[in-house]
Amino acid sequence: MVAVQQEKNGRIRILTAARTLFDSHGFHQTAMAELAVAAQVSVGQIYRLFKSKGDIIEALVHDDADQWCREMAEIQARLDSDELTIDETFEQLLLHTIDEKDEALSFDILAESFRNPAVADTIGSMCQRFRTFIRYFACAANDKLSGEALDAAEEMILACLFGLGHRSVSRPRLSASNAVHRTAQMIVTALRGVR
Amino acid sequence: MVAVQQEKNGRIRILTAARTLFDSHGFHQTAMAELAVAAQVSVGQIYRLFKSKGDIIEALVHDDADQWCREMAEIQARLDSDELTIDETFEQLLLHTIDEKDEALSFDILAESFRNPAVADTIGSMCQRFRTFIRYFACAANDKLSGEALDAAEEMILACLFGLGHRSVSRPRLSASNAVHRTAQMIVTALRGVR
Repeated sequence: MVAVQQEKNGRIRILTAARTLFDSHGFHQTAMAELAVAAQVSVGQIYRLFKSKGDIIEALVHDDADQWCREMAEIQARLDSDELTIDETFEQLLLHTIDEKDEALSFDILAESFRNPAVADTIGSMCQRFRTFIRYFACAANDKLSGEALDAAEEMILACLFGLGHRSVSRPRLSASNAVHRTAQMIVTALRGVR
Repeated sequence: MVAVQQEKNGRIRILTAARTLFDSHGFHQTAMAELAVAAQVSVGQIYRLFKSKGDIIEALVHDDADQWCREMAEIQARLDSDELTIDETFEQLLLHTIDEKDEALSFDILAESFRNPAVADTIGSMCQRFRTFIRYFACAANDKLSGEALDAAEEMILACLFGLGHRSVSRPRLSASNAVHRTAQMIVTALRGVR
């Protein structure tokens, strides 16, 4: 039991240190030895838990996806119990992604997905999980959406979530809360007006 | 004159080779010597034209931004002469970005912008140029937009352009032409419905 707990703590320490180091230096520029020092583990221990740096990246993506899906499930429950209006539902979704943290790391991982099919598959599966929730929310705004109109709604919502998440590169004037509030309204208007 | 032309050809060859190599290997993983071989120039010639790899990246961003602004100016002229409806105008904008080329390179450059202030400034200024066009198109859809509503419209349109540009990572079902057509309609509906 102690060994299992130690392994779990080691895993958490490695992933926490990896997130910080990879974000500040880039994961190609971070040596496993550096990561071991920062996580206070041996290089051997890293390799017992992760086959490669690619494996660490996949674990980071998985952890983020799991957390985001838990939050979307909570938002869905709050919508279903009428605690949130549909506008507020989209606000909550956008609030999660707007002005994302660890952006350098996110972009590194996205770049890697074009060079490493395993990372691309992990991101692809993660997005499929997001899409299921997004379809649900789109239909909650307009229950007549189906077929290609629903597919397109899904694309547009995903684009807004992704784009607002990385809006800092384009130096926006508008505050995050204002952008979230007004974009949620525009999304709902767009969904309801689908011809 | 011959020297000027040779320098111009060298610059074009270096940037063309850099785009391909940086995209496939990552620019941190590409040595100047490799780039020199691919561009058929000497390493010395690269350093006469570009101070550093960062300078090459900035030149690539500038070239892309100039081309995109020329295309937006053309779209604007076609809208002004009633050759394009407002829906078609947004379709043309989205067509430019959807399923972007050189995505690995784009994400590398975006990651670099968080670690290199000069790259961040170049991208920031580029986005300011885009924003001027986007505001014009938003007002063409709804001439009552102003203040924060117009700022928010700008954010939402930028998010859609950026998000659809990188939708391949999320493995979409919908064809590019269909996504462009329907998203353009949703954007116009959202802009016209701003409360």
